This record gives sequence, structure tokens and C-alpha cells, in this order.
Amino acid sequence: MEKLTIIKVGGKIVEESDTLNQLLADFSKIPGYKLLVHGGGRSATRIAESLGIESRMVNGRRITDAETLKVVTMVYGGLVNKNIVAGLQAKGVNAIGLTGADMNVIRSVKRPVKEVDYGFVGDVKQVDAEVLVSLICRGAVPVMAPLTHDGEGHILNTNADTIAGETAKALADAFDVTLVYCFEKKGVLKDENDDNSVIPVITPDLFRQYVAEGVIQGGMIPKLENAFSAVEAGVRQVIITQASAIDGLSGTVIRIEK
Amino acid sequence: MEKLTIIKVGGKIVEESDTLNQLLADFSKIPGYKLLVHGGGRSATRIAESLGIESRMVNGRRITDAETLKVVTMVYGGLVNKNIVAGLQAKGVNAIGLTGADMNVIRSVKRPVKEVDYGFVGDVKQVDAEVLVSLICRGAVPVMAPLTHDGEGHILNTNADTIAGETAKALADAFDVTLVYCFEKKGVLKDENDDNSVIPVITPDLFRQYVAEGVIQGGMIPKLENAFSAVEAGVRQVIITQASAIDGLSGTVIRIEK
Repeated sequence: MEKLTIIKVGGKIVEESDTLNQLLADFSKIPGYKLLVHGGGRSATRIAESLGIESRMVNGRRITDAETLKVVTMVYGGLVNKNIVAGLQAKGVNAIGLTGADMNVIRSVKRPVKEVDYGFVGDVKQVDAEVLVSLICRGAVPVMAPLTHDGEGHILNTNADTIAGETAKALADAFDVTLVYCFEKKGVLKDENDDNSVIPVITPDLFRQYVAEGVIQGGMIPKLENAFSAVEAGVRQVIITQASAIDGLSGTVIRIEK
Repeated sequence: MEKLTIIKVGGKIVEESDTLNQLLADFSKIPGYKLLVHGGGRSATRIAESLGIESRMVNGRRITDAETLKVVTMVYGGLVNKNIVAGLQAKGVNAIGLTGADMNVIRSVKRPVKEVDYGFVGDVKQVDAEVLVSLICRGAVPVMAPLTHDGEGHILNTNADTIAGETAKALADAFDVTLVYCFEKKGVLKDENDDNSVIPVITPDLFRQYVAEGVIQGGMIPKLENAFSAVEAGVRQVIITQASAIDGLSGTVIRIEK
């Protein structure tokens, strides 16, 4: 089975030209099949602000009203995505920018209103693996914006971590998938004050132990739960690391077996 | 040879929800292979204005400085393109949004500065017909934004009429291409005050005659010159009509033979 590396990078990395250029250089060096999922929240917030649209966040998630949806469609699908695509093309990577609407790659449903009305936010329903496999096998490198569609004509704002995870799961039948989540640190830290205390491997047993001990806490818990959900669905491994380490793929490896 | 219909619509049609919905309904009814090229200038101007960026036009062409380039990348590549793609998906058309950077579909060169510095504007250098043929033959319907790239990491703003014309020429070896330019009138008029005076067919001889007589003048002259350049390069016919007529394809037909 051919290897496929899926890299998810947050907005911070792709929105500043220095870090973006470094990312594109590192990403272009990854051998074999690959796919990039990006965020873009900081640019969206900044452009919304310039347009006089208030960005409202609840539990770290953006509330996407009709005006905000226009902004994220512009920023994620246009500005950020196309700059990455053009940048990768310049490095010889045959990138193609995709939202979930393009070739119906990712269908979602508008999140039901419970305690919070997140607005035009989509929960992923289905990833069309066949379309992605076909593009990848003919040498294209998908660059996926955090936008999906509901099949009824509406673009929906969708969490980039979720897009990366669901895409990885959908492609696990066709490829030997490594999913890499980039964040600020070198990996999951044993001691949050020591950047060099990276935990090399987390298995389900170790995860339970670290959570019980309070070593792993807060936002890292759902992140790792998502990672385990991906490996349980057939993704070979999930790596949590810094964007600057995607070339060598050091960091914390999440997998089922020890 | 399979037929391919390429429709170019200006910004006005795709930027208002009523006319956009009608266009998408009409476009979805066109039988066989098809491709849509869109503009988006009015939205770009409006959003640039909201962001405090002045839109400067010379000879009807936008001067694209660095800030304006960001706006058109957002608006053409994101907002307008993705709304069209999601809208077509809802009508069962398997649309895929593309700029020239995506899969290197259209390479351009930054327009040299002569009397006017148009800024980040690209003149089309090469259309990759093979990529488009491959997408079209597997059932995808390309929706092309008026953006290209220079292969060195830069998106360039590119005239949508030119994109439609160059794409039609590039695909003329693979398909029996009809290129349709939509504008405000039902076709090229013999009498500009009579909307029903549509000239049914214009051949090179008739074109010269109408220009000499002053029937065809102004901005219609370069438009028709471009149309003849397309038919000379192998496009079967160019039709100039209203967006509302793309289903039946009435209007003015530009072709070489009588």
C-alpha cells in the first residue's frame, strides 16, 4: 500500500509569509503522496474586523453568521488557499485547492442548535475518497480549505482538525496514512514548562494513565481523542508536532500498538 | 468528437442571488460537457471599498496593486467561485472551482509595464488542456475564476474573457467547442436602440462590412476580434448572447464559414 502523509497546519503558520514559505519548503520535501489541510482563522478575524464584522467565539469556536460565512469563504477558500496553491506550484508540487463543495469532496450538515447556535458551521457527513484517490494517484496534491457544503447550495465553515481527521479516515482504505497535526510545541509535553519533554509515543493505555495523572489535560484531551478515533478507523499513525518538524516527522506518535 | 460548451458570464450575473440562481438553473440544463468562466468585478470593487482600498480603473481594466490582488484573490477565488460551485452541486452538476494555479491549469506572465502599469495582472501564456480534459471526461465541470499564476508563487488577476477564449482554443483539439460570451444584450445589435435587431451570424466578411458601416463599434470590436481569433484556432463557433439565453443558445453566432 502506498504511503500518504496528511499535514494539518493552523492559520498562524500559513498566514505569515516567513512561516508560510518555510512550511511550503518543508512540505514540498515530504516524499510520496501527500495532502495539506489548512486553517486561516487569524486572517478571517482581521478581515472581518476591517469590514466591520464582529468575530464572536464560543469555546474557542467561531460563530459563523451570514456575514462571517462570506468572510471565511473569501479568506479560507480564496486568499489563504490560493496563496498556498501558487506557492506550492512554484516549488514543483502540483497542488489543487479544494473546499468540500469542489467535486462534492466533503458533504456536511449544518450543526444543530443546542446550547449554542454556531450558525453556518458544518459537521462532516461524508468524504468522497474516490475523488481524492483519483486526484492523488494522478499526481495532484490536494490543499483543503476548512469549508464544506451541505449539498443544498450552502458553504459551511468546518473545523480544519476535523477535515484532516475525517479525510485521513476516508483514505485509510486506499493508502497507508500518516496524519500530522502541527501545533506550537514540538509534541505533547510531559512538562508544559519544558519544551524538550516531548512524549515520544502515546498508546490508549498511556493516554488513560497521563490523563489520570494530569499530565495531559485541557484542549489536548479532545485532540488526542480525535487522534485515537483516526487510528481506530485505520489510519496508521497520528503525529503531533511543530510545523517546522514535518520534514523529519519527529514529535509525539499516537498509535494503538506499543 | 464530443461537444463542449464553455460559458463566460460577467460579474453582474453571478453576484446577485436572483440572477445567479437563474444562471445556475440554465447552466445545469446545458447537455453534455461544459465549463463555466466567471467574473466578479463588482463584488471586488465593493469589498475593496469596505476595506478602504481604492479601485482604480484604466480603459475599463482594474489596476491590481498588492492590496487589490488580495481582494480579487479572496473574491474571485473564494466568495464568487465557491458560491457558484456549491450552487451547481445542489443542482447535480459536479462542479470544481479552479484558478490557473490549481493543477497549474493556466500559467501567465505579469503584464509588462508600458504606458500603464496594470500591476499584478497576468497575460495568459499556457493552458494545460490535458488536466482540463481529464477532469471533464470524468464528469467534473470546471468553474474557472479569473485568476492565473506565474509559476513563481504569484497569483495574477486575469481578464475572464481572455481565460474563456484561451481555454476554448486549448480544448479545441479535444472537443467540438462552442464558446458563449454572455453580456447584457440578446446578441450583437444592428441598431443599438433596438434590442430585437440581433445580427444572427457574423463572418469575417460581414464583420469588416459592419465595422466599415459603423454598425459595429467601440468595445464590441476587440470582443469580436477575440471571437474570430478563437474560431480561427479551431473553436467551432462563438456565440454572443444574454445569460438568460444560454439554455437555448440564441444570439449572434461568430464563425468563419457562412
